[in-house]
Order: sequence, then C-alpha cells, then structure tokens
Amino acid sequence: MAKLWDKGYAINASIESFTVGDDYLWDVALVQFDCLGSIAHAQMLLKIGVLTTKEFNVLKKSLCEIIALADQGAFAIKPSDEDVHTAIENYLVKQCGTIGKKIHTARSRNDQILLDMRLYMKEELINVMDGLVAFCSTLQTVAEQYSMVPMPGRTHFQKAMPSSVGLLMGAYLESMLDNAVLVSDAYKLIDQCPLGSAAGYGVNMPIDRQLVSDLLGFSKVQNNVLYVSNSRGKYESIVLSCLVQIMMDLSKIATDCIIFSAPEFGYFTLPDQLCTGSSLMPQKKNPDVLELIRARSATVLSCHMQVLEIIRGLPSGYNRDFQEIKKPLMQGLMITKQCIALCDLVIGNIHVNTNACINACTPEIFATDQALLLVQQGVPFREAYKKIALLQAHMPDNDPVENIKSKKHMGAPGDLGLPLSSQKIKKITVWNKTVKERNKKTFLTLKG
Amino acid sequence: MAKLWDKGYAINASIESFTVGDDYLWDVALVQFDCLGSIAHAQMLLKIGVLTTKEFNVLKKSLCEIIALADQGAFAIKPSDEDVHTAIENYLVKQCGTIGKKIHTARSRNDQILLDMRLYMKEELINVMDGLVAFCSTLQTVAEQYSMVPMPGRTHFQKAMPSSVGLLMGAYLESMLDNAVLVSDAYKLIDQCPLGSAAGYGVNMPIDRQLVSDLLGFSKVQNNVLYVSNSRGKYESIVLSCLVQIMMDLSKIATDCIIFSAPEFGYFTLPDQLCTGSSLMPQKKNPDVLELIRARSATVLSCHMQVLEIIRGLPSGYNRDFQEIKKPLMQGLMITKQCIALCDLVIGNIHVNTNACINACTPEIFATDQALLLVQQGVPFREAYKKIALLQAHMPDNDPVENIKSKKHMGAPGDLGLPLSSQKIKKITVWNKTVKERNKKTFLTLKG
Amino acid sequence: MAKLWDKGYAINASIESFTVGDDYLWDVALVQFDCLGSIAHAQMLLKIGVLTTKEFNVLKKSLCEIIALADQGAFAIKPSDEDVHTAIENYLVKQCGTIGKKIHTARSRNDQILLDMRLYMKEELINVMDGLVAFCSTLQTVAEQYSMVPMPGRTHFQKAMPSSVGLLMGAYLESMLDNAVLVSDAYKLIDQCPLGSAAGYGVNMPIDRQLVSDLLGFSKVQNNVLYVSNSRGKYESIVLSCLVQIMMDLSKIATDCIIFSAPEFGYFTLPDQLCTGSSLMPQKKNPDVLELIRARSATVLSCHMQVLEIIRGLPSGYNRDFQEIKKPLMQGLMITKQCIALCDLVIGNIHVNTNACINACTPEIFATDQALLLVQQGVPFREAYKKIALLQAHMPDNDPVENIKSKKHMGAPGDLGLPLSSQKIKKITVWNKTVKERNKKTFLTLKG
Amino acid sequence: MAKLWDKGYAINASIESFTVGDDYLWDVALVQFDCLGSIAHAQMLLKIGVLTTKEFNVLKKSLCEIIALADQGAFAIKPSDEDVHTAIENYLVKQCGTIGKKIHTARSRNDQILLDMRLYMKEELINVMDGLVAFCSTLQTVAEQYSMVPMPGRTHFQKAMPSSVGLLMGAYLESMLDNAVLVSDAYKLIDQCPLGSAAGYGVNMPIDRQLVSDLLGFSKVQNNVLYVSNSRGKYESIVLSCLVQIMMDLSKIATDCIIFSAPEFGYFTLPDQLCTGSSLMPQKKNPDVLELIRARSATVLSCHMQVLEIIRGLPSGYNRDFQEIKKPLMQGLMITKQCIALCDLVIGNIHVNTNACINACTPEIFATDQALLLVQQGVPFREAYKKIALLQAHMPDNDPVENIKSKKHMGAPGDLGLPLSSQKIKKITVWNKTVKERNKKTFLTLKG
Repeated sequence: MAKLWDKGYAINASIESFTVGDDYLWDVALVQFDCLGSIAHAQMLLKIGVLTTKEFNVLKKSLCEIIALADQGAFAIKPSDEDVHTAIENYLVKQCGTIGKKIHTARSRNDQILLDMRLYMKEELINVMDGLVAFCSTLQTVAEQYSMVPMPGRTHFQKAMPSSVGLLMGAYLESMLDNAVLVSDAYKLIDQCPLGSAAGYGVNMPIDRQLVSDLLGFSKVQNNVLYVSNSRGKYESIVLSCLVQIMMDLSKIATDCIIFSAPEFGYFTLPDQLCTGSSLMPQKKNPDVLELIRARSATVLSCHMQVLEIIRGLPSGYNRDFQEIKKPLMQGLMITKQCIALCDLVIGNIHVNTNACINACTPEIFATDQALLLVQQGVPFREAYKKIALLQAHMPDNDPVENIKSKKHMGAPGDLGLPLSSQKIKKITVWNKTVKERNKKTFLTLKG
Repeated sequence: MAKLWDKGYAINASIESFTVGDDYLWDVALVQFDCLGSIAHAQMLLKIGVLTTKEFNVLKKSLCEIIALADQGAFAIKPSDEDVHTAIENYLVKQCGTIGKKIHTARSRNDQILLDMRLYMKEELINVMDGLVAFCSTLQTVAEQYSMVPMPGRTHFQKAMPSSVGLLMGAYLESMLDNAVLVSDAYKLIDQCPLGSAAGYGVNMPIDRQLVSDLLGFSKVQNNVLYVSNSRGKYESIVLSCLVQIMMDLSKIATDCIIFSAPEFGYFTLPDQLCTGSSLMPQKKNPDVLELIRARSATVLSCHMQVLEIIRGLPSGYNRDFQEIKKPLMQGLMITKQCIALCDLVIGNIHVNTNACINACTPEIFATDQALLLVQQGVPFREAYKKIALLQAHMPDNDPVENIKSKKHMGAPGDLGLPLSSQKIKKITVWNKTVKERNKKTFLTLKG
Repeated sequence: MAKLWDKGYAINASIESFTVGDDYLWDVALVQFDCLGSIAHAQMLLKIGVLTTKEFNVLKKSLCEIIALADQGAFAIKPSDEDVHTAIENYLVKQCGTIGKKIHTARSRNDQILLDMRLYMKEELINVMDGLVAFCSTLQTVAEQYSMVPMPGRTHFQKAMPSSVGLLMGAYLESMLDNAVLVSDAYKLIDQCPLGSAAGYGVNMPIDRQLVSDLLGFSKVQNNVLYVSNSRGKYESIVLSCLVQIMMDLSKIATDCIIFSAPEFGYFTLPDQLCTGSSLMPQKKNPDVLELIRARSATVLSCHMQVLEIIRGLPSGYNRDFQEIKKPLMQGLMITKQCIALCDLVIGNIHVNTNACINACTPEIFATDQALLLVQQGVPFREAYKKIALLQAHMPDNDPVENIKSKKHMGAPGDLGLPLSSQKIKKITVWNKTVKERNKKTFLTLKG
Repeated sequence: MAKLWDKGYAINASIESFTVGDDYLWDVALVQFDCLGSIAHAQMLLKIGVLTTKEFNVLKKSLCEIIALADQGAFAIKPSDEDVHTAIENYLVKQCGTIGKKIHTARSRNDQILLDMRLYMKEELINVMDGLVAFCSTLQTVAEQYSMVPMPGRTHFQKAMPSSVGLLMGAYLESMLDNAVLVSDAYKLIDQCPLGSAAGYGVNMPIDRQLVSDLLGFSKVQNNVLYVSNSRGKYESIVLSCLVQIMMDLSKIATDCIIFSAPEFGYFTLPDQLCTGSSLMPQKKNPDVLELIRARSATVLSCHMQVLEIIRGLPSGYNRDFQEIKKPLMQGLMITKQCIALCDLVIGNIHVNTNACINACTPEIFATDQALLLVQQGVPFREAYKKIALLQAHMPDNDPVENIKSKKHMGAPGDLGLPLSSQKIKKITVWNKTVKERNKKTFLTLKG
C-alpha cells in the first residue's frame, strides 16, 4: 500500500525492511486504540467545521468496521503499510474515497502513536492491577491459613530466628500492595491526552484538544505540545519502573520457593502438574516455572533499561529512535502479567509440609529470644547477648509454635495485621473496577 | 573499637577491610538519623519499662551530644567501628556505662539501618523537591520571557515546523512538574516506619511500634516485619527511579543547549563564567557543564540499575548484599541535586540570540502550515500534502513571529498555558514546605 | 508430541505455555546444528558399541533428512514439542522406532543446547565478520576518496581544528578493524566442544569426547563437565560484548551522519532512496535508518545486560534461567548483522558536499596551528597559546586543504596510514575465509 | 593554581566544583603515568628540535622529582588544579620557569589523559592477572586435594547426579583460566600508543609518534588520530568486560559457598576468622564476605554499563562526557582485584566436611547412572529412562566414591584433567611475568 509520505520514488528495500522492522506485528495490539482516537479526532474536526456530519458518519462507520475486524483478528497490517496508522488510513481511503483523505488533518503519526500507546498503557495497567488483585487475595488466604506454621527465619542465608509461613506470605502480600500503589500512581500520571500536539509543534487550526481528551476518557490534556513529544519514552519508562518492582518481588518469591522446595529444606512441595522433568535424569521434578520467573525479572529489568538508554541522549522533539521503545514496553507488560498469574497459581497450590517446617526450628534460632528474656530480668542487652553467645551449645528446648504465638507486637509473627491488608485489597479492587468500567463506557459511547 | 558481635576472636584483616569498605565514610550522613531513631527507641523502651526515666535521660543527653558533634563535623566513624550504629553504641557505652549496653534491646542493626535510610531518603527527597521548585520557577520566567521568540522545531534532527523558545522552555517546565509528582508519590510510599522489625522476625517483647513511628514523624508503621527487611533496596530503587526521570530530562535539556549553542546554530550563548577552555586550542569555549550533566545522567541510571541488580536474585530476609545499595543511592541523590541546581543556573543565565533564532526559520518549515491552509479552503489533507510537497522550492515568505502567535490551541506556541504551570508550582511549593516544616518540628520535639 | 521426560501426568497448560515460551520459534535456527551434533554423537556411540553400524546409518539418514527439511523451511517445531531436541528425537522415534530411542544415550538436553548454541555462535560470528570485511572495504574506499576533503574537527560539539572526511572515515575504519580482532578473539575462546558433559556431571560410560569434538570441527574439548554447564551465558555474553562494541561504533557513525546531514551542516547528503518522509510535513526527508541504528545499539546493549543479569546470581550447574539467554543472543546477532550491512549501504552511498565542508572551515579552527607556528619560532607553547587567544578576531586566512596536507605525522590528516589498514583488511578476510571453509567442509564430511 | 586555558575571567564556583568533581582525587593514581608520558614526549620534542638537551634534562629532572614525590604520597592535586595534567604543568612552570611552558607543545590534555589511562589499564590488567595466577594455583591445589570427595551435583537447585568437590573446584579453575585469556586478549588490543593525536586532529609539527610509542613500551602506535579520541571509553569498556566476566564467576563461587555452608547443607565451613556476627543474634556466624562479593559483581556490571551508556550516543571527537568514565573503570579494577584476592583467601581456607558431602549423596542421584547401566545391557535409553523413573523408590545402594572414580571420560569426576590446567597456569604465569618485567624495565630506562 502507499506510504503516507509517498513522494514518487522507491525506498531502498533493505532500508524499508529495517525501518519497519517487526513494528507491523506489534501494532496489531494498537488497532482498536488508533480507531478510537480517530473517531474522537473526527468528531472534533466535525465540531470545527473540517468535516461535515455526513463525512464524520462515513468515517466513524468505517473505523467501527475496522475495530470489529480487529476483534476477530481479521485486520492485517502488512510490512508495506509501515504501521497501524497507515494501514488504517489506507483502509479509509479505499472505503471512503476522498473523505478518507481528510482524517489526517491537523494531526501527525507522532501524536497518533503517542495516543495509541497512552491508551494501551492505561488498559494494560488495569490488566496488571487485575492480576495483582487476584494474587493479593491468594496471598491473604495463604497467610491466614499458615499463620501458625513456624519456620526458621533466615538472614545471610543462615538460620536466624523463628519465623512463620504466614509471616512470609504476609510479606509477599504487603509488597504486592505497595506495588498496587505504584501502578495506580503511574496510571494517574500518564492519564493525559497527547492528541493535538501533531508533530510536537501544534497546528495552525483552532483544534479543540479538551473535547478530544474528554471523548477519550482522559483526566486531562497533556498541555505543552513539545512536552507531549518529549514524554515519549518517559511515560513508558515510568510504567516499566512499576513492572520492574513487581518482577523484583516475584523473583524473590520464586527464589524463596525454589530454595524451600529443595530436598535439603522440604518446607514446600510444588504439585506435579506445575513441574517439569529432565530428558536424562529419570528422578527429576523441576521448578522450571519459578526459575523462569526469576530469569524473566532480568528481562523486564532489561526492557526498562533499554527504554531509558534509548531516550537518554536524545534532543527535544520526535526522533525515530522512539519506535524502538514499543517492543520492550509491550514485552514488559506481557511478561509481568503472565508472571503474576503464574506466581498466583504456584502460591495458591503450594503444599506446605508443616512437620518439616517445625523440625527445621532447631535450638540455635531461639538464642535472641533467650537473650531478650534475660533483658526482661534486668540484664543489659549487650551483656545478655554475650552470655547467650557462650551458652549456645546448651540452649533450652523451645516450642516454635508457642514462640511465634507469643510475639504479638505489630507486624510480628503473632500479629500479622491481616485485617489491614484485607482492607487494602478491597480498596484497590474498587479503584480498579471503577477505572475499568469508566473506560469501557467511554469507548462504547465513542463507538455508539 | 569493639564490634557489637565480638566473640573473642580476631577477624581476618583483609576480610574486615573488604566488608566494611568505605561504608564508615558514607555513614557520616546518617549519624543524625541514627541518633534520632535511638531517642525514639529509648523513649519506647521507657514506656514498656526496659529503661527507667533516669536511664532514658542519660541516653538522650548523650545522643543529643552526638548529634551536636556531628553537626560540627566532629563525630568520626572509624573503619574499626564497622558502621554508624556501632560507633554510636560504643560512644554511649563509653559515656553512660551499663546504661549504654541497654540501647540495643529489641532492635537489630538491620532495622536501624532501614530506619536511617528511610529518614535520609525522606530528607533528601525534600531537598530534591527544593531544587525542582527553584528550577521550575526559573523555567516559568524564561518561558514567559521568550514566549514570542520563534525558532525552528525539529524532528529527526531536521528542521520541521515553527516552534518557539517559550515552547521549548515550557516543555522543560512541564517535564519537571511531572517529576515533582513522581517525587511526592515516592515520598508518600516510603513514609513508613521500619523500626521494631529487628532482624526481620520481630522480638519477644511487647514493643510499641506505633509510638516510635509517631515520634519520628512517619505517616504509618510498615507492618509485616519481614516485608520491612525485604523492602530494603526496593524503596531505594523507587527513589532512584524518580531521580532517573529527572536526570533523563536534564540530559535532554543539556543536549538541546549543547546543540543550540554550537556555532552552526548560535541560538543560545552560555556566559563565559559557565564555560571552560582547552589546554591546546586557544579559541575554545566549551559547554563542559552540560556535557557532564548528560554523562552523569548515565551515572544515575547505572546507580538505579546497580540497586536493582543487587536485589534481583536475593531470597527473603536480610542479606549482606544490601550494604552495597547505600552508595549508589547516596551518589544518585547527590548528583541529581547538583545537576538540578546547575541546569537552573545555566537556563537562568542563558543568552537567547533572537535574530539567530528568527533567521533560522527558513521557508521549508512552513510547508505543513501551508498544507493546512489549503485544507481550510476545502482540499482534503492528503491531497494538500502532495500539492505542497511538489511546491517546496516556491514556498511563500512567512513571518515566524506571526506564525507562532497564530497557533492558539491548547499547548501550542501561541498559548503555552503558563498560568496552569504557575499554579502547579505553587502547589508543589506548598507541599514541600509543609512536609519540611513538619519533619523539622518533629525532630526538635524529639531532641527537646 | 510426547515430552522426553513424560511420566504419565499432564502438566498444567499455563505452566507449559509459560515455560516453553516462544522457544520453539527461536529453535528453528538450531535444527541444523542439533542434527549435526546428533550425527557426531551417534558416530561416537557406534565407536563405543552402543549403536551398531546399521543403527548408526539409519539414524544418520533420518538426521540428514531433517536437515534437508529444515533447509526448505519444512521442519516445524510445535509448542507441544517443547524444544528442538524433543522435536528431533520424536521424529527419529517415529521414523526409526526403537533405534530412535537410543540416540539420547549418554547425553542431556543440557549439553545438546550448549552444543547447538556453540555451533550457532561460531557460524554467526563468521557472518558478522563477513559484514565487517565488507564494511571495512567500503570505509577504505571512502577514506581514500575523500582524504583531501577538509572539514572542521569538533571537540565538545564545538568547532576545534581542521579535520578531513578521510580522517573521519579512517577513524571508523580503524574502529571496525579493532572490532574484527574482538570477534576473532571471541571465536577462538568459545571454540570448545561441550558435548559429553551431559547434565554437567558426566556419564558412567566410556564416551569419547575428543572424537565428537574433532568430528564437529572444534579446536578442542571444553574439559571440566561442570564448567561446560557453568559457561552457559558466559560464552554468550562474551559474544554479545563484541557485538556491543560494534554497535557502539555504529551508533557513533549514525550520530555523526545525522548531524552532518542536518541543514545547518550540510556536509553530507543521504540519497532519497535511503530516507523516509513525514505523514504530516510535506517537505521532510528523514534519516530514519541512522536513528534506528542508534536506537538499536541500546537494544543490543540491553541484550548484553540481560544475559549478564540472568546469570549473575546463579549457583553452579544447570538452571532453567538459562533458557532466557537464547533470545537476547539471537536478537543481538541479528540486529548487529543488519546494522553493519545498513551502515555499509549508507556510507557507500553518502554524498559528500565538498564546498560545504570547505566553507565550514572558518578561521578560528586554525588558532592552534597558529600557536604552534609561533612555537616553531621559539615561543614557549603556553605563551603562544595566550598570544593567539587574544588575537582570535584577527586570525589570518588559511587554506584548509593545504592545512590538512601539511599535517604529515603518523595518523594525521595528511598521512592517514591507509596502506596499513588495507593490509589488516586482507588479514581478516583470509582468516574469515579459512574458518568458514573449514566449517563447511567439516559439516559436509559429517553428513556425507 | 592557574588553569591551562586561563583567559582572564573567573569561572563560576559551582560550575568549577561540578566539572572538576572528585577527578583530582582519582587522578592521584595517574601521576606516575603522566610524568612518564611527559618524559617520552619531551624526549621526542628534543629529537625534533623543540627542546634543547639542556631544557630536556631540566624537565626530566623535575618530572622524576614528581614521580618520587608521588611514590611517597607527597604530590597533591588540588581541586583548583582541575586535573593531574595541570598540577604537573603548574609544578614544572614553577620549578623550571619558561622551560616548563614548553612541555605542552604539540599535545593536548585529550591525548595525555588517553595515554595515562592506557598505561594505567595496562598496569592494572597485569595486577588482575597476578591475582588470577594466584587464585588458579589455589584452585588447582584444592581441586587435587578434594578430587575424591563426592557431593551431589545439582540442576534446577535440585539434587541431580553424583559430583565431587574436585569437579566443582576444577570448574572454577577452568573459568578463571578462560578469564585469563580474556585479560591477555584485552591487554594486547589496548596496547597501542595514543600520544601525538593531540585533540584528535593531529598537529602541524613533524612529531615522531613511533619514538614516543617505543619509549613508553607500547607494541604499536594507535594510528588514526581521530580514532584515538573515539576509542576513549571503548577501550575502557573492553577492559571492564573482562572484569565483568571475572566477577560473574566469582559471584557464582560466592553463591555456591553461601549455599553449601548453610546448616541444611554443611558441606563447607568457613573459618571463624573469615566470618562476621550479628548485633542482635548471639549465635550467628555470617558469610558476609561472600555476600559482598556477590553484590559487588553487580557493582562492576554497573560500572561496565555506565561506561557504555556514557559513550553510546556521542558524536566523534572529544566530549567532556568522557571524564565520567574514569571512576567506574578505576572502581571496577579495584573491586575486581580485591574480590579475586578474597575468593582466593576463602577457597584456600575453606573446610570441606567430607562426611556431610558423602551423606548428602542420597539414592535418587544415582538414577541416571542406573538407566545407563540398563543401556549397556542393550535397553534403548528412552526405555531405560522410563523403567528407572518407575523404580525410584527402590534404588539400590550406591557407593558415591566408587561412582565418581568410575567416571573416567574427559572432564568427568574421575578424570578432572588437572595436568592440563597446571600447564595453562604455567603459561599465563610466564606471560604475565614477561609483560610485567618488560614494562618495569621500560619505565626505568625512561627515568634513568
């Protein structure tokens, strides 16, 4: 198909293939958003008199057709189309003739892709939040269920003090709740409408950016037209920085579970259905899923870095380098969503071997508690510490269950504070549902 | 001095030197916070009966002495002290005898360093915000001052469309305002009190974590004691992710200013006082400060990466790897604060060569505007585009000042929306002032 | 198809999809190498009596069939196959029955994938070297062609001293020649045969690793079987570190050409066929290919980082995390090969505007030369420097062509040392041809 | 002191402080090299008639004085000196008057710092090689000593097959021998003399670059003067890429040792002298040194990244951004040298608990060997695998020592190939000694 900037000469084939890359494949995820943006843009062009009502209706009908095709996986973007914007404009020109040639009035592919990515990121952050909500509920359940199962807490990978499976799961839960705050903060920050910035310098037409923003459900217009252009990559990296935090925590969960399900520990068992085997060693049952979650945390971290590296030395205004940002963002989102769901699956189905956990609570892990008992008898802590250090070989027997029960200060094994996290889960559930429904309604109105 | 964990044998000298590293130097920045934490902790120990009022007063007096010494740069931490916590406990034992040996009751160096870093990060984020507030004011002034100075806007580093110095400065301004949101979001997230988590598993004493949190001015207790430990590095990387965003934008500003002050452009001139020279080439006047800001954006990005890499594969609980996080965080903060201040200095003193800017607005940059004029006469955009593409050599003369004046839609060169940013500056100024004063008051109360 | 480790229960579908990922797609590039490895392995099993001659011939025939199918793109790997090794073993069992079940004797997928990647990297490094050889030849030609075209040399992005287009191209050339050394060093290091290490702990059979290594054309056996396993990721990152160096230099070339073809410079013009246009701005002709080369240098850098991050915290022995290494390596190689070819295309077709280059040599760039002329009259350099610094406004006219001609010391614009680089190009050409033909012959012998 | 480019106005104090940074501290490591470079440069200026013999002798004497002062830590570089080059030139002018003002003839600080860093990197790579040689010898000894101590080999962090402590140590050894190849390859590549490139564009004087290169002991001149400038950062990142490989392997060693010395494993015990304790928990003995080696591998990786990020988008020629490269290079070298020495110390003093190692060899790790025994009885491997998989609960008893003894193929536990590594250690020892002595002799001659 014709390029939008066609000037009558043929571009070198290897240059074309290189510059398009596999963008046309990734752009499939953007068809819906590009069409919604075009409907809102057309409605604005109608308002300022560039389009007649009839023209607007013709364009809207075709754009809704494209969305319907895309929903069925039937709207293809060919490498020769360069990108989603061109594929759609070409379709419109084919379907609507001259009217189709009017849609690109007062906009650029620069602000179009900015819009598409913005809508895409908003939707995907909601999807990430869906995953977090579900995972937090699982963690809440598991933390409650195992709140009284003791296990050794570790520092320096050595046994340190009595802990509990509930404390561990509660720690995961609170990390995910913090991550949910990061996700909603990021959502609120990027919820700004870029359309109307054109190539980063505005247009000499009285366009109504507020109208477009409202039609598309943004909370505000991103004002300065050059900043819109400069925020490409910035907003993507803000989104990725949330995903990185989630993946770092999932990597910790994976690492813990790999260790605690090794034969030397045996605290946890993964169900067979979640494990894979070895081609050579008949006896093996491997926690591949956890190892890959750990590895993919490095991948998402690299995606984040890649975006930041790409934009770091660039001058103001659009640079084609921005195209290379799309893929790491999309990969980062895809991987993170998948990893949340899989961690949820693993934690929700993990088997806790209570006896192994209790038996692992060997005497030395009670040393600190012994020292603090001396303190409560009036011995200064540093002296109690030295006394106990010498006594190690003769530590009295301790009941680990009683031990964790007795630690009742805020956040300790005996008081996990789970009602508090339950409330927080409710709060993020409500937020996410509200945002999701608002967006859904906005898009229905736009198409309707 | 004695180590807190001394067990009567000497540690290998090279191991000691390696494990301590230059931590004892970086820890100087933490003395004040460690003492404040100890006062609050002691006050809590008093409440639960571990300390008598007399003992508490003795400890508090000594801790206030240390703060006073540190203020004068007179409290040294020696390599043999290992860290700030040990240096202070050793001082207390020396000054207060047995009473000093009670201060470490029911806490660990793990939650102490977590507390110190938390207070440190809170203070430094406020300092960063100070810099942002000042820089935003400068940008606001400069954007207003040069709002009617046209310059070519660029895409692909080619001349694209008419822009203005005001639009450029306004873009910088809005990026910094978004960054201020990131900073305050990060502040709110990390504003959770870690003390009382001990080694990550709580203690068998009825400590009052809420009291400590309130005394230290935190908005809440960070609940799950293991999550407190697991959040080491997480919170630091959240802070660094804000700094990275700031540095990315400063790098863009630096890159633009380097380009626009090169002889081929000459839009901007840096005052002599802000430039350096060459040892070989007599004529040179170099924008070193801008080049170094650009380079140091890579440094802060690396600091961010370093923290994330350090924590990525770690299991739950304290790992000594955490120590290596302190330095990149502190460096990142130091560099960012400095770079904001220097960008502020450069932008506040840059000379804009209006004539050079106007003369650079050569005819081809008006092509898009011409095409849109045809659109307003009823020509479909894609046809207008082709018509103008052929006409390029004969573009009519255009007045660039009139051009930018005429673009009056939201965020365009003719309507920069500066009153809006002025309001936002006021808002962040108030937030920052409020938080700063609240912290100051809290610390005075604690010491008083 | 059946998994090699099938134990009679079904793995969870989302776990299966997650662990396989898109590995089965990337593995298509490995079919040939996996078959070659299997032929060599089978020949060794024949020698030690595990296979009969007849069995060996049956297996070899089937393996050659698979290679032939793969050459035609007709050997598919399905997600249910998990990976290339399983797809091939399943094919063999289907074709050869019980004989097919013998091929996996005394090996693991661990050493199979290590072998496949090793052969793949060797072949791809040769392909990279092909590109370097061609690009160096282009640079040699261009450096000779423009050796007497002066242009301003820059430091701090400011005009500094007289330079030449030949000096610039010669600098690119020498960087690529250093890169060729890195590539051949990497090739030599990784040219070690991993097969026979099995799962990293060897096997209780008298396998002949030297025979396998010789059959596959390796220069030696990688000895310690656990080190073989531990070198996964290490060798990949060594290859990637060469690619990163190449991409860093291509990024510099791209950046230079973007700048020097901007209208303010106009030293270079890219042919229309290598440029793209704007959807909005009719006049634009953009150097997208160069911007994308610059951006993709960040991508390859991220691929390198990703591999290093993945392996950084792993214990000895195989970890499933390794699977995640394949993709960044393959992407890094693909991008680098493409970017070398495209830079070659651009530099080979760039138009140098001699007049623009000469006219840009304004008087101030001769200041240093003037100072050194004073030195040759006996003035101490630091005084000459100060004298000229004051005189700047009255610099005498200079002929830039004469200037560069006159600088005849080693490596200066007047003596680019091109015969030396010509010799080096010959040397790498010979090396590459030799290695390539040796591998080709080895593989033919193996299949024949 | 006066700046070399002083033009009579004062630079802004905060700009000065920012641009100098802490460079003047890091530059202390370069004094010796800067003076040696100046002696060689002066000797060349003597040859081409810029200096008289008397002048040369005066300069040489002063430069030798500075080296002597620096050896005693008595040559200070003040922030006001900007850098090592200025401090030395100022000293020379103070000591030698007008003669001192001649030393900077025909050179720039650009090629001076390039020279200093080149000599510094060469020396430090030799120091790194010293560490590798020592560590390899330790590993050789330990591998021999424990070659017959079995332990379970792991994959997926699960027990997999019989391994041995000797195999593990041998794997470490071979990784370090590969690293030694990387180090010597890097040394050879960067062993090119940059002096005489001046600011990257040569000088209009008949300087003799080959003479300078020979005097300083380089294997050749780095030819193209602009490439010299462009290789700043490139060569540093090549050096860092070797260090990263070393640190990745040390991180693996550290991770293994942390795991294997945890109570659940108990294969290794670290001597008390190499461990530290807890301030809270009286019983703790922590492997901090290993955790910090692991963490610092992330630091060196970040240093590597930082250098690559800094140079990635830069145009040809000197950019001040290069200054920011010095610190990560120096840190990377310092950390790596220290970590090699400490790993050497740990491995050389580790206690292997033979009984714990043997007892850990539980029946299931022999499953693969059992399957291969069936193969030797004629059962096709895939069937043997399935048979054994079903039998797991009834695995016959196995003698792990006999098992590892019986695996005698190349690189297997029963044939570690240690004579081969012994030869390689000898080879790198000789190379390193030769290079070190050649450099020493060259420098003595130069000063003599």
